[in-house]
Amino acid sequence: MSTKTQEPKIRRISPLSEDEAKWTTLQKIEWTDQTGRDRVWEAAARKTRKESGVDAVAIGPIIRHPNRPVSTMVILQYRPPVDAICVEFPAGLIDEGETPEQAAIRELKEETGYEGKVLDCSPTIVADPGLTNANMQMVTIEVNLKEGDEEPEQHLDEGEHIERVVVPLDQLYEKLQAFSKEEGKIVDARLFHWAMGLHWSQRLGLKQA
Amino acid sequence: MSTKTQEPKIRRISPLSEDEAKWTTLQKIEWTDQTGRDRVWEAAARKTRKESGVDAVAIGPIIRHPNRPVSTMVILQYRPPVDAICVEFPAGLIDEGETPEQAAIRELKEETGYEGKVLDCSPTIVADPGLTNANMQMVTIEVNLKEGDEEPEQHLDEGEHIERVVVPLDQLYEKLQAFSKEEGKIVDARLFHWAMGLHWSQRLGLKQA
Repeated sequence: MSTKTQEPKIRRISPLSEDEAKWTTLQKIEWTDQTGRDRVWEAAARKTRKESGVDAVAIGPIIRHPNRPVSTMVILQYRPPVDAICVEFPAGLIDEGETPEQAAIRELKEETGYEGKVLDCSPTIVADPGLTNANMQMVTIEVNLKEGDEEPEQHLDEGEHIERVVVPLDQLYEKLQAFSKEEGKIVDARLFHWAMGLHWSQRLGLKQA
Repeated sequence: MSTKTQEPKIRRISPLSEDEAKWTTLQKIEWTDQTGRDRVWEAAARKTRKESGVDAVAIGPIIRHPNRPVSTMVILQYRPPVDAICVEFPAGLIDEGETPEQAAIRELKEETGYEGKVLDCSPTIVADPGLTNANMQMVTIEVNLKEGDEEPEQHLDEGEHIERVVVPLDQLYEKLQAFSKEEGKIVDARLFHWAMGLHWSQRLGLKQA
C-alpha cells in the first residue's frame, strides 16, 4: 500500500470521445412517450456491468460493541469527478459471478478490514435515474466487536487511499453536517439520506416497529 | 396536460457523440494522486448547471393531517435511462437565480400540487461521485393538511407524466419493497436510503433526540 504524501490534484479536464472512453459511455435514447410522441433522452452508463445486471453494492455497517453506542462506519476518499474528499458508505463494483452479499462482505473487508454478517439486502435501486442507468444494491452488515478488539488492517487495492471513521448512529446526522460545513468534505447523497431517515424518525418520535 | 394513453417504449439506444449531446457530457479528468502518480478518471456531467453550482433539489415532504398518521409523498414516473417507472422523492433542476428552498417549493407544487414550509435544507451532496459530478440539496418541507382538504391539482410541464402516492412513514420501507418486488418499479437509491434510515432507527430502538 502506497503512503499518502500529497494532496490529489486535477491537472486538466477535457471532453472524452466515445472512442477513448474505457469505463463510461453516453447514450442517445430514442423513445416514445405516454402520448405517442417520439422523444430523445441523453444518459450516461458504465461499460463495466456484468451479467448480474447490477453495477455496485454499498454497505451499511451496524457496529455493536459491549460498552459503546451502536455505530456505523463511513469512509473518506478523494473523488476526481467532484474534486473533493467524499464521505460515503463503503461500496464497490460487483465482480463477475459474485452475489451482492458476497461483494458486500469482500468490499467491507478490503476497504475497512471489518468482517460481519449480512442482515439485509435491498432490491436493485438506481443512483440518479434522470441522468444515468447506474444501479446498486444496499447490504446491511452487522459487525460484532468484543472488548479489546483492535482495529483491523485494511486490504486496499493499489492506488486506493481510504480513511475509515466510526460514528455512533445517534451522532451521524450532526457528524455529516460537520464534515460538510466545517471540513469542506462532500457527503454522498445516499449516506446523507440514510442519516436523514434516522434523524427524522427520532425527531418525529416514530415508534419502534 | 396530455393524457396517458400508452406505455412508454424505447425504440433505439445508440452512442451519443460529444457534438450531438445537449444536456450531458463525458469528461476525461487527468489528475495526480496522493503518491504523485498521474492518473485518468472518466466522469459524466450535466451541461445545465447554473451559477449556484448545484444541479438539483429533492424534496422530502412531511405531511401532517389531524387524524391520519404522519406521511410522506413519493412520485412515480417513467425514466428512460433505466427503462422503468421509478419511485422517487419529488425533485427537479434548480433554475437560474433560484435558491434551493425556492426551487423545492416550486417543484413540490408543480409535481404534486402541495404547498408547505421549509423545515430544513441539506448541504450540497453528491449523487454518485465515482461516476458523475451530479450534485443536489435535499429540502425537507412540512405540509399541513386540514380535515376535508381535497387533493390539489398538479401543475406539470408539457410531457411530464407523474403520479403521486402518499405513504405513512411507518409503512414506507415495506411499501418501497412492494413497489420493487411486486410491481416491477425501481426505487431511487436516495429515497430508499431515507426509508432505510427510518427502518433501522425503529428496528434498533434508537431514542428520540
